[in-house]
Amino acid sequence: MAELRKDPIIGRWVIISTERSKRDSDWSVSAIQARSSEFCPFCEGNEDRTPPEIFALRGNNSPPNTPGWLIRVVPNKFPALQREGDLSQQQFGVYELINGIGAHEVIIETPQHGLQLADLPVDHIQKLLAIYQQRIHGLTPVQHIKYVLIFKNSGYAAGATLEHSHSQIIATPIIPKRVLEEIEGFKRYYEEKRNCILCDIVRQEMLQKTRIIGQTPLFIALEPFAARFPFESWILPIEHCSHFQEMSAEYLFDFANILKYVLEKLKNRLDNPPYNFILHTNPINTTENMIYHWHLEIIPKLTKVAGFEWGSGFYINPVPPEEAALWLQNS
Amino acid sequence: MAELRKDPIIGRWVIISTERSKRDSDWSVSAIQARSSEFCPFCEGNEDRTPPEIFALRGNNSPPNTPGWLIRVVPNKFPALQREGDLSQQQFGVYELINGIGAHEVIIETPQHGLQLADLPVDHIQKLLAIYQQRIHGLTPVQHIKYVLIFKNSGYAAGATLEHSHSQIIATPIIPKRVLEEIEGFKRYYEEKRNCILCDIVRQEMLQKTRIIGQTPLFIALEPFAARFPFESWILPIEHCSHFQEMSAEYLFDFANILKYVLEKLKNRLDNPPYNFILHTNPINTTENMIYHWHLEIIPKLTKVAGFEWGSGFYINPVPPEEAALWLQNS
Repeated sequence: MAELRKDPIIGRWVIISTERSKRDSDWSVSAIQARSSEFCPFCEGNEDRTPPEIFALRGNNSPPNTPGWLIRVVPNKFPALQREGDLSQQQFGVYELINGIGAHEVIIETPQHGLQLADLPVDHIQKLLAIYQQRIHGLTPVQHIKYVLIFKNSGYAAGATLEHSHSQIIATPIIPKRVLEEIEGFKRYYEEKRNCILCDIVRQEMLQKTRIIGQTPLFIALEPFAARFPFESWILPIEHCSHFQEMSAEYLFDFANILKYVLEKLKNRLDNPPYNFILHTNPINTTENMIYHWHLEIIPKLTKVAGFEWGSGFYINPVPPEEAALWLQNS
Repeated sequence: MAELRKDPIIGRWVIISTERSKRDSDWSVSAIQARSSEFCPFCEGNEDRTPPEIFALRGNNSPPNTPGWLIRVVPNKFPALQREGDLSQQQFGVYELINGIGAHEVIIETPQHGLQLADLPVDHIQKLLAIYQQRIHGLTPVQHIKYVLIFKNSGYAAGATLEHSHSQIIATPIIPKRVLEEIEGFKRYYEEKRNCILCDIVRQEMLQKTRIIGQTPLFIALEPFAARFPFESWILPIEHCSHFQEMSAEYLFDFANILKYVLEKLKNRLDNPPYNFILHTNPINTTENMIYHWHLEIIPKLTKVAGFEWGSGFYINPVPPEEAALWLQNS
């Protein structure tokens, strides 16, 4: 079983995943690069090559784990965290670790291999977003889980090991450091100004207009003021909302629209870049932090400037977000 | 001039570097990949293709900016931060920014194009480390500078735009977030245990031995307990020392030895991976934080698992550090 280990200096948790290393034994660069396969376990017809499905959207009453699905949720074959077991905490001198309890699921977004998320119709994307909500609700009652992290790696350079369009869910027994930092920031601002900082940011951006890349009745898409990466793009609900999974179907439809719009913009204007997106939402099982404002952060993987940033927490972004917004608008 | 912008939620600073974007105008993936050049401005004989040198180690009294040097320090041609100007702070609604004041220098580690840092003799590496110290001392009296960050990107995938072996120095008017977090962690531990946490970690690792990859009389190299990346490796002085630039020549020699040893191990056992290293040392111009323990963090760029980590502060490491240590030892 995997372990969750805590950095004793700065308190950051890391999943040390022994399951995943079973896939490999040679860690040299050339060995890693040689590992690619033509076979796709996510394609329709290959349902027996994934673990049995957790859920699938099927239009024709087809039985589980057979063709005929539109979107399919399966456990990750090499899970970073596992659902079975107790959450035992151990201390070894200065070090602290807990069992790798949680969940790791894959959402196969389409049965068709060649399609990207940006290519799917809006109603298909809306169904995917509803499944994100459903999985958060499904994982909420599971013992020990404190956070449900939904993200997407698209393209090899962005960390996707399989090309077929998919998202991932990692449910963790701790709240990720970045989310904790955000919550702290929301609280600090609220204590001073009695407002949500992202609500204030949305208001200021809508007046200033220089970083906005798209807008729908309920959502706004923008390049953040202190963007870490070229063309980093955020999508936010205009009205305050702390939990992604509480959004109504009307909101989901609007979110699907603007998500497709932004992904298409990035794809067309940046020549189909690899990218990651991460859904930032409130921890589950808490009525605290209602001041949190959920949003989606999209990071195209354009440059390799990301060298020393890992170690310093310091970022150099060669493209001012205002220039990035202009570049995306001009098409 | 560049701008230092503060993320209003979590307080992270980002350098928005307009100087650097002047190099490019097309941000599509294919345009970026097409930008590579055979010409190397860091090779001996091409001294006029860099800005005039700040310092060079020359054995034969050769004049500045001519051949005959062993190690050469020049301003970065596309600096992220600049030395001239006032440090003006501005507030725009929720946003805060300061002028991009600071310094950005390049240390060309050898006149020979094909050599890597791991290939250089120990006494050459010691001279390089002494120049690191000298540049920290040189930048310390410069107005507005609060931190001197020394790092190395080696290989294209690790963010190096030029192949010729070099390190970089970025001197900043703010202290990087990660360093602040470390200082806080050192203080928290000290308040509880009246010890330096890294001194305690060194003691525990020397007893336990499972993560150690090398040792000299004065230094230890290990895989950290909560390693974020496969084969992440740290080098630490065994005795407490807060400021890298205060080390004696005896220490520098020993550090050069173990640095060469670790870089050679990584190169040979992992098939010459791209990597970053970052020197973690105390902020300059302060006698506070003497509890800080300087160290070097080396991150080979082996896997692309680094997708969603950017956004979550959460890491999945598929190689347990104990296995990584074994793999490096067996050679």
